[in-house]
Amino acid sequence: MPEEVLRQAADEMLDWNGSGMSVMEMSHRGAEFMSIHEAALTDLRDLLKVPASHRILFLQGGGIGENAIVPLNLLGSRKTADFVVTGSWSQKSFKEAQKYGTPHIAANGKTDQGFTHVPKIAEWHLSDDPAYVHLCTNETIDGVETFEIPDLGSVPLVADASSHILSRPMDIAKYGVLFGGAQKNIGMAGVTVVIVREDLLDRALAICPSAFEWKTIAENNSMYNTPPTYAIYIAGLVFKWLKKQGGLQVMEARSIEKSSLLYDTIDSSSFYLNKVERQSRSRMNVPFFLADETRNEAFLAGAKARGLLQLKGHKSVGGMRASIYNAVPLEAVKTLVEYMKEFEQASA
Amino acid sequence: MPEEVLRQAADEMLDWNGSGMSVMEMSHRGAEFMSIHEAALTDLRDLLKVPASHRILFLQGGGIGENAIVPLNLLGSRKTADFVVTGSWSQKSFKEAQKYGTPHIAANGKTDQGFTHVPKIAEWHLSDDPAYVHLCTNETIDGVETFEIPDLGSVPLVADASSHILSRPMDIAKYGVLFGGAQKNIGMAGVTVVIVREDLLDRALAICPSAFEWKTIAENNSMYNTPPTYAIYIAGLVFKWLKKQGGLQVMEARSIEKSSLLYDTIDSSSFYLNKVERQSRSRMNVPFFLADETRNEAFLAGAKARGLLQLKGHKSVGGMRASIYNAVPLEAVKTLVEYMKEFEQASA
Repeated sequence: MPEEVLRQAADEMLDWNGSGMSVMEMSHRGAEFMSIHEAALTDLRDLLKVPASHRILFLQGGGIGENAIVPLNLLGSRKTADFVVTGSWSQKSFKEAQKYGTPHIAANGKTDQGFTHVPKIAEWHLSDDPAYVHLCTNETIDGVETFEIPDLGSVPLVADASSHILSRPMDIAKYGVLFGGAQKNIGMAGVTVVIVREDLLDRALAICPSAFEWKTIAENNSMYNTPPTYAIYIAGLVFKWLKKQGGLQVMEARSIEKSSLLYDTIDSSSFYLNKVERQSRSRMNVPFFLADETRNEAFLAGAKARGLLQLKGHKSVGGMRASIYNAVPLEAVKTLVEYMKEFEQASA
Repeated sequence: MPEEVLRQAADEMLDWNGSGMSVMEMSHRGAEFMSIHEAALTDLRDLLKVPASHRILFLQGGGIGENAIVPLNLLGSRKTADFVVTGSWSQKSFKEAQKYGTPHIAANGKTDQGFTHVPKIAEWHLSDDPAYVHLCTNETIDGVETFEIPDLGSVPLVADASSHILSRPMDIAKYGVLFGGAQKNIGMAGVTVVIVREDLLDRALAICPSAFEWKTIAENNSMYNTPPTYAIYIAGLVFKWLKKQGGLQVMEARSIEKSSLLYDTIDSSSFYLNKVERQSRSRMNVPFFLADETRNEAFLAGAKARGLLQLKGHKSVGGMRASIYNAVPLEAVKTLVEYMKEFEQASA
């Protein structure tokens, strides 16, 4: 989280804007919270240039919740949805969709080296009449990011952008649905942003819980049930911070600089290894391996001694992983890169 | 929210307990948040004297979310669940359950005066083999609270205690499931507490979303998906505050004192009116009507001038409503009662 945002939240904790109330105490239907909610919607629409065709909803349940909520809202009378599997998260989404229909894997980026690339669009084998095509546009565990978005005609594209939303401009018009849990770049865990094209609001299954039915949420402006008010407030502060930084083009430039520094360090040495092909490399999550994996513990211990935390790779893939979300400053990446070089030299 | 809790949250916003991190920034699987989570579980178990037979889960989606999540988790191979309707919320729960089976209304407290009482247990017409019996133990809109809890033998009792949980001791052993959204007495909106008897974790329908399947959540100690970490932290601070106040017996005594003051004022005058029978009157939500309803606007305007806000009754019932949750001090109720008496005299 940007320190500025945390400072403002602390300052306003007992009295938001002279209201005498904490945001936590506000009625979600009161004028004060409504103004916070409206500002968050407006700023997010502005940042992502969300077209008028799309609604912005605030839900609960995070990305994993949406794995069920998406098919419950979009399958309609169809049984099939297509999945482009680029890593662990899209695989998980595919599995969950099996509860509600017979989803189909249109393409799979898994190789004997793990998930190493986004399958080329020409190689996607779409089924006849899928309800939608699902894509996880950034895979945190595998470090695979999707940059090229196809035009699928009338088939809606659904993107799980949980882990890289707001790190770069995206052409929202290309997506039927784009969603993201908040805990990476949006704010604190507990709110899910769902951006959905208005004409897709009519396809929910009868078994879709009302609290997660996009149409119901849209008709009630995210106030059908009590929304996670404080998480929306914090997201709103982050949106304002992002605008002050210069918006998503600036965040993209920073992400390119930060991630390039890391990938260049990895590629310029045979001591470190990243298996993802260049054009699919994530700017948010940089997994890497030590050529000599017996040195893993020593690497992590040395990193910890310098305050470089949370560098251990996900247990399903091993190795290391540097997550460099929007709030991570360039300086922190420089510190990591210096440490990597020193560790390599010391190991020679 | 108790002011003490808000002050502590503000103080710790940038640095929790010397960790150098905000709670918002913590990994939910890191040692710091795990300790916050464990303390919240322990304190809640202690406050409500939750027996070892029951698990405590933290979910998302609030009480309205649970309206679907309960049948999705509990219907199992049965189609029917029984509902005791005591007000607007239990009515809504009944309606949502129709998405997943053929629920049955076992008793209905509605009269031509609105919802005025909890139907006597002897008058509940349970169906043959219901999956469970649902009860909303406090109805915020109608001001009806359930104090007498039946022994239903092997049929699990499900209680929506969203709006009065932690206002008094409850014998949790009597309930199969007891749940509550956080925004009344637990903390901030965005986390739902679900207390469920362990042997009921095996009944979920195949269509239950994984992120809302109690068994999955229980097996993963509420870490299957990223939990609403900050909301759990705030709930934990409130639990500690409640223990410092002396626990739920003290909260009950305070609630009795606050609500009696209001009901006595209403009953001692023909100017004000409450239609709920005495033994079902809510200690959290006190709805009342002016005998002369043309005076409603004047009453509300005068109240606002004294800083007495949010007294307008729900639009579905009209009149007035005073919500006096745990964090509302006795002094505020005294101010309201004084105003009510003055307004009555001035109207004579």
